[in-house]
Amino acid sequence: MKVRIGVDVGGTNIVCGVVSPGGLLIQKIKQPTETARGSEYVLGKIAGIIRQAVELAGLTMEDVECVGVGTPGLVDPSSGVTVFAGNLGWHNVPVADILSRHLNLPVKVDNDVRMYVLGEAVRGAGRGYKHVLGITVGTGLAAAFVEDGRLFYGSRSMAGELGHICFNEIPYVCSCGLTGCLETVASATGLVRQALTRLQDGADSSLRGLLRADGSPSEGLTAAAIAEAYDAGDSLAIEIMNNTGVLLGKGLAYAITLFSPDCVVIGGGVAAAGERLLQPMKEQIRRSVLPQYDINTAIVTAELPDDAGVIGSSIYASSRLN
Amino acid sequence: MKVRIGVDVGGTNIVCGVVSPGGLLIQKIKQPTETARGSEYVLGKIAGIIRQAVELAGLTMEDVECVGVGTPGLVDPSSGVTVFAGNLGWHNVPVADILSRHLNLPVKVDNDVRMYVLGEAVRGAGRGYKHVLGITVGTGLAAAFVEDGRLFYGSRSMAGELGHICFNEIPYVCSCGLTGCLETVASATGLVRQALTRLQDGADSSLRGLLRADGSPSEGLTAAAIAEAYDAGDSLAIEIMNNTGVLLGKGLAYAITLFSPDCVVIGGGVAAAGERLLQPMKEQIRRSVLPQYDINTAIVTAELPDDAGVIGSSIYASSRLN
Repeated sequence: MKVRIGVDVGGTNIVCGVVSPGGLLIQKIKQPTETARGSEYVLGKIAGIIRQAVELAGLTMEDVECVGVGTPGLVDPSSGVTVFAGNLGWHNVPVADILSRHLNLPVKVDNDVRMYVLGEAVRGAGRGYKHVLGITVGTGLAAAFVEDGRLFYGSRSMAGELGHICFNEIPYVCSCGLTGCLETVASATGLVRQALTRLQDGADSSLRGLLRADGSPSEGLTAAAIAEAYDAGDSLAIEIMNNTGVLLGKGLAYAITLFSPDCVVIGGGVAAAGERLLQPMKEQIRRSVLPQYDINTAIVTAELPDDAGVIGSSIYASSRLN
Repeated sequence: MKVRIGVDVGGTNIVCGVVSPGGLLIQKIKQPTETARGSEYVLGKIAGIIRQAVELAGLTMEDVECVGVGTPGLVDPSSGVTVFAGNLGWHNVPVADILSRHLNLPVKVDNDVRMYVLGEAVRGAGRGYKHVLGITVGTGLAAAFVEDGRLFYGSRSMAGELGHICFNEIPYVCSCGLTGCLETVASATGLVRQALTRLQDGADSSLRGLLRADGSPSEGLTAAAIAEAYDAGDSLAIEIMNNTGVLLGKGLAYAITLFSPDCVVIGGGVAAAGERLLQPMKEQIRRSVLPQYDINTAIVTAELPDDAGVIGSSIYASSRLN
């Protein structure tokens, strides 16, 4: 049996892995993306890292079946083109074409959130469940649904935009132009946004020490700093975590009611906030879904946060061969 | 090619149709369900109506490939059992087993909303679209999603419970036990419930004439009466239609953002309210979804309201053979 390659392209790092047919990560290399040098350079670099990882695994390129790549942003999986990825600076980059020219292998490309959720669904916390809803709460908020190891896409591959469902009670304008998007609250930037707004409103909090003299946020005002203040009993930090958990719970209650998963996997950087966020989230879900969903839906945290994207990309590529 | 039979079992009537392999209704018979006589009687009656319809179509039972049945309530499509249907008084009725014994034909059973949406998606207003979200706004509110002619089920076949997503701004307790379910407003009973509450609060309206002396609603206080009052310029009726349209629009915006359909079909009895309801609904959707969805999602009313369930059931049964 041949191995598969999975690649997770982020704004900061490229992670490339050699994955067994059973979905086990055999070898992994992480290197800076160097987005400033442009897509052609980055894709050439990825080809080099792939060759290096295969060699380190004691294999040759003859042993490789296919390559799967997850990139941020809007991706057209059928053509393998990254249509728009803001944090890479990529517009209409034909990732599959360029990489397969470099490597002479079939290359499949899809959105990094879908690849992450696929990896968690098949080999991570969703293993053994037939219907898995996965979300990543990180810089942004997005969701994907996997049934029997197959991703749900919807029209134009735009299903699962959980970050852009709107709530009356959210006052923030989103980068998409809508007001009240869940992502403006339930994300790393959303936690900071809420802290800043409340501090500017005069809230009493230890987080005030993380503002500059002019009232703007210092680099220290992060989701992690809010979690730390929470642990120290800071009432603003507690209010923000609760509010965020409740709103995320409402959004997930909608997604559970519409998709009926038997497992929900919570991943992404903000999942590190753990029970601070997950407890109010779970309580809200319980209050907002039919008891049949509440009893039958497992809510779990991601098991492979660092590797899910790489493993998912490799599984995806293999499933798309024919 | 053999014909298929589709059966739509309602609390009031049974509709049974002979459907061509291309999905055209060749012959249709409608008879009272007589639920009071019990499930065995009703299923025997259905078998008789099927034989009659086949004969009227100039065919014999040898010409029939299979039978599809849609029933209200909770159905287990894999076993063909209607688990619970309140308005039929059915608990764990093995519909497929009983009917196939009567007819000596393969019988497939599913929920009537899914059958209706499947019929509209494949042969009605969703024809030609790849990803169709269909809703029925009638006594209750429910949704189903069809991709390439295949229904989306989710775990325990419980996907699409749009009627049970909760809103802060809805004060009503639902029969499911939750407070704020969309169905308590966006349904025939929901329209009447809102009118009654507002009249009891002292609202000025011509609908007041439809209350009994003790303040309870007369049989004349219906969704149709509210539509009529709307047309006469009654401000309460206008308020109720607008409020209902806005909330339905919010719920659909969530479903559009999560499923990414390219067509939304609005069906069910309340769809007869037409633009009174659909205009505020569409405006709310436009305000609440990413522009990519707004531009690319057609919102249409059902084309086969009386026949969609029968046609959908026949298509479903045929797709489930093998």
